Amino acid sequence: MRAVNVPLGDRTYPILIGNNLLSQLGRKCAALKLGNRCAIISDENVARHFLKPATASLEAAGFQVVSVVLPAGEKSKSMKFVEKCHDALAAHRLERKSFIVALGGGVMGDLAGFVAATYLRGIAFVQVPTSLLAQVDSSVGGKTGVNLRAGKNLVGAFYQPKLVLCDLDSLRTLPEREFRAGLAEVIKYGIIYDAPLFAKLERNFDKILKRDAKILTDVVARCCEIKADVVGQDETESGLRAILNFGHTIGHAIENISGYGKYLHGEAISIGQIAAAKISAELTGLSPKEVQRIDVLFQRAGLPTKINLNSTQRQKLFAAMRLDKKVSQGEIKFVLAERIGSVKWGQQVPQEAIERSLA
Amino acid sequence: MRAVNVPLGDRTYPILIGNNLLSQLGRKCAALKLGNRCAIISDENVARHFLKPATASLEAAGFQVVSVVLPAGEKSKSMKFVEKCHDALAAHRLERKSFIVALGGGVMGDLAGFVAATYLRGIAFVQVPTSLLAQVDSSVGGKTGVNLRAGKNLVGAFYQPKLVLCDLDSLRTLPEREFRAGLAEVIKYGIIYDAPLFAKLERNFDKILKRDAKILTDVVARCCEIKADVVGQDETESGLRAILNFGHTIGHAIENISGYGKYLHGEAISIGQIAAAKISAELTGLSPKEVQRIDVLFQRAGLPTKINLNSTQRQKLFAAMRLDKKVSQGEIKFVLAERIGSVKWGQQVPQEAIERSLA
Repeated sequence: MRAVNVPLGDRTYPILIGNNLLSQLGRKCAALKLGNRCAIISDENVARHFLKPATASLEAAGFQVVSVVLPAGEKSKSMKFVEKCHDALAAHRLERKSFIVALGGGVMGDLAGFVAATYLRGIAFVQVPTSLLAQVDSSVGGKTGVNLRAGKNLVGAFYQPKLVLCDLDSLRTLPEREFRAGLAEVIKYGIIYDAPLFAKLERNFDKILKRDAKILTDVVARCCEIKADVVGQDETESGLRAILNFGHTIGHAIENISGYGKYLHGEAISIGQIAAAKISAELTGLSPKEVQRIDVLFQRAGLPTKINLNSTQRQKLFAAMRLDKKVSQGEIKFVLAERIGSVKWGQQVPQEAIERSLA
Repeated sequence: MRAVNVPLGDRTYPILIGNNLLSQLGRKCAALKLGNRCAIISDENVARHFLKPATASLEAAGFQVVSVVLPAGEKSKSMKFVEKCHDALAAHRLERKSFIVALGGGVMGDLAGFVAATYLRGIAFVQVPTSLLAQVDSSVGGKTGVNLRAGKNLVGAFYQPKLVLCDLDSLRTLPEREFRAGLAEVIKYGIIYDAPLFAKLERNFDKILKRDAKILTDVVARCCEIKADVVGQDETESGLRAILNFGHTIGHAIENISGYGKYLHGEAISIGQIAAAKISAELTGLSPKEVQRIDVLFQRAGLPTKINLNSTQRQKLFAAMRLDKKVSQGEIKFVLAERIGSVKWGQQVPQEAIERSLA
């Protein structure tokens, strides 16, 4: 087992990464000295595999457990389902010292985290991410939220968990498409922060695609370290943390205009990262050779690297981008790479450059 | 004009109390160096009187102003209306540096504050309380929230405004019933914290009922000082702040079982405070003479001091109390008075004592 600390003063918490961790969930929660009631929030797909062992582990540690199981997919990340969760917690008499366990992928983590942040003005929560994307990205750092019709993650809170438990065994049952989508965030860490990680991915990508336990533990732990390092320096995204959004401005807009669910988040940001790399070649000096290396790695992951848009769709895409949370004074800001391992945030990009990158 | 500071480190903010302040709203907001767009969230009753001058003041200071006007009353304090506000903010392209002005009574302040706390994971907001209750209580201290079917304020966030602007002129148009309901919170500050304030209210109550500007400025400023003092010591209610809930456990339950809207909040906590005073006489030594003084002052305010319940309603009342946020390990905790000006929180009370206090 590996442990990574997210250093945030009195809200510091550990991420545990390893095999067979779900069975230790109850014991780890007991060590946190929370109240004796908890609610597991999960979706139908995840619940099928992991709700029983999670419940059993918590009950064995003496907790009274209730569970809320929602439909799988991005559509559950809405205010409607937030309220359903709130109603269920109230019906089960969860109190201020009770806690929530977010069991599932990024959607469940974001939703359950926001429910925890807002129920009784905030109760404790524990993240048990079961997808690769959630393990390396969304479960760490305290961004919680839901979507509005107008855009993704437009509602939410910065709210840190008490513990993140990444059980690598849960990746075994992950559908191939979702596993590959998670790799889009893994590759991102190499581009934005860690050239040796990027090179390691290039060398070991076949093993990774076969979900080799040893290399996956290494890679997941390294991604968590990078995210913890960034979040520890800038919790609420006043500066540095923005680098984690590399490829996300275009990616979120693609998700928005295509209706959530057509592209997985990892697929949309794969297209977004390729586009951002091309813009970087134009504006911040990323070499054509490195653009090529980035493109090849996303292709090896079996991820989409381009999108065909007619002019109406293109207009919608730009409208969606202007609603991005990172917009300031009406200007869309980009994260752009200077080279693999080093990026700059807050970059202004002319609309034509964005259009060229998507051509 | 009087100014009271709420001392919360880097989230410290001022409360300004005086006449003719609404016309200075724009100038005061400009001094905060927020973005150039803002949204005023208000209700139909308040908007009729104050939306135009508020908008004019903000526009004169150079802000782009949009307004969201909701139905008046407690029913707007729901997740449904939170989402309506979010959608409106997104439609108007409010950004991270934009801000919200909560213009209205307690309902609008709680709702708009929660909207600000959650839109784009939190944008700035300014409270412009227009009711007595909101000026002395709900606009100060950062408690924001909405109701669930299961109970009042069960969803929310601790989220501090950047500025609170109490224009005493806005009390002139306040309906008599609402003004008197606000006095329930004013009297509460005397009971929980300040015997001289209580005595001052007794001496000057006729003037107060006539809304004499001089005495009202004094009283509102003193209430804000007390609240600022308490909140500055315990922002998230881990201890001391609980004293502000004197009379609220029973009060909230009355609001809940009678359907929000039948009793105004101030009316419900008037009954709750009388009951808490009677329980205090039994359990914490409040003298019968002081119970009497408390009872008389609420009567002079024209507020209800008792409630008739049949046995079904009584059962519902206790069920609602057990859902109170202050419940811990299933036990309902009360704030009880030792004497006027001094209370203890976290007091266990046998159900029979509560029943006797309501008999």
